[in-house]
Amino acid sequence: METPKTPSPDAAAEERSREVTGVAAADWAESSADPRYRAAVVDLLGALAYGELAAFERLADDAKLAPALADKAALARMAAAEFQHFERLTGRLREIDEDPAAAMEPFASALEEFHRLTAPSDWLEGLVKAYVGDAIAADFYREVAVRLDSDTRALVLAVLDDTGHASFAVEKVRAAIEADPRVGGRLALWARRLMGEALSQAQRVVADRDALSTMLVGGVADGFDLAEIGRMFSRITEAHTKRMAALGLSA
Amino acid sequence: METPKTPSPDAAAEERSREVTGVAAADWAESSADPRYRAAVVDLLGALAYGELAAFERLADDAKLAPALADKAALARMAAAEFQHFERLTGRLREIDEDPAAAMEPFASALEEFHRLTAPSDWLEGLVKAYVGDAIAADFYREVAVRLDSDTRALVLAVLDDTGHASFAVEKVRAAIEADPRVGGRLALWARRLMGEALSQAQRVVADRDALSTMLVGGVADGFDLAEIGRMFSRITEAHTKRMAALGLSA
Repeated sequence: METPKTPSPDAAAEERSREVTGVAAADWAESSADPRYRAAVVDLLGALAYGELAAFERLADDAKLAPALADKAALARMAAAEFQHFERLTGRLREIDEDPAAAMEPFASALEEFHRLTAPSDWLEGLVKAYVGDAIAADFYREVAVRLDSDTRALVLAVLDDTGHASFAVEKVRAAIEADPRVGGRLALWARRLMGEALSQAQRVVADRDALSTMLVGGVADGFDLAEIGRMFSRITEAHTKRMAALGLSA
Repeated sequence: METPKTPSPDAAAEERSREVTGVAAADWAESSADPRYRAAVVDLLGALAYGELAAFERLADDAKLAPALADKAALARMAAAEFQHFERLTGRLREIDEDPAAAMEPFASALEEFHRLTAPSDWLEGLVKAYVGDAIAADFYREVAVRLDSDTRALVLAVLDDTGHASFAVEKVRAAIEADPRVGGRLALWARRLMGEALSQAQRVVADRDALSTMLVGGVADGFDLAEIGRMFSRITEAHTKRMAALGLSA
């Protein structure tokens, strides 16, 4: 579940861009004076908040597929944790005098579309989706944290710190594959589809939201670099592939 | 939302039965030495826990009907609160070395049946159900609290203290009735149906679970008194009728 620790050329580039912008050294009061940075953070918090709310709804829905009460409770627990993240993120938006609904609205259709296209057809698909979603969210939070002012970063890291409720899914999925290896093939395809749909919706968002996209690749001072966005997606995809292999779901 | 404060003949009877049994003066260690009392509390915690889990699922489901993001978040917030109650109740079951799933299982079918028969067909029906369910649960918790040992009572009151998330529903329902008075007639019928189905499932549970039913009417020492169960249901129904009238939903 860890992103690779070895410094890569990408990490070095990341390091440079951080030095250039220096947002990470500033707090919210200072950095939000730049209206483009402010708009990017409002976008980010809105996207994350809607993502948490949508995840809450889908996990609560998937809980119905649980074969046993304890499994149902485990999925409901993850859903409730997502809702707590939603509360923190929308609370922060209100703190900075932004309307949470207005901040979330631009991201609703991409997230709804993702969930519509990836409705699990059974309990195991639901588990894999919960695990993959939790892990990708954690990777993304970690990627974006370094681009943020100290106040916003503290919030994002606090929300990140509280993920990982999905680890119980690993055990269940492994046991199911052991019992019937054909399950592994089906779930590997499913995990690939999840990642594909996630990337395709993420690319829609990147294309639509300039301020957010620019910030994601190294701060507003550097301008929007599509190649760097691509590298971020590659790192996340690579981490996903490693996790899937560890789970016995090699592509 | 308050139960009537004036002492009624029922309240006096309640007072007497409390004096007789004295469970309220004892703590869990002392009172659980009686296996019938212990069985009754395990039943109670199991029934409440499953009730909270089922409420979580249905509220999360109803959140989909919300006309606006803020409404969706409000219903999701109630769902998450129910899940926190679930965690406390099942946590307590584990503390007293009981398996939560086994304790919940006897109540699953009655609660599932209740929700199956009362699936809201629109947002307003969902709101009325959330409000009615929250209030009836609070009334029931208050009724049962006086029968319990000090430790179990503290838990039940703590969970009760955290309800009332449904008050936002009152405002929305009132506004909808004002805008279209015919809505009031439809929702009044709906609220009656909710109460009817709740009572019918509760009566099933009473018939099936002797130890629980006996405790609900004044402690195991007094034996099972069906008339007293009836009076408890009457008090809860009366409080419900008053609340509905206050909401503009007179029958």
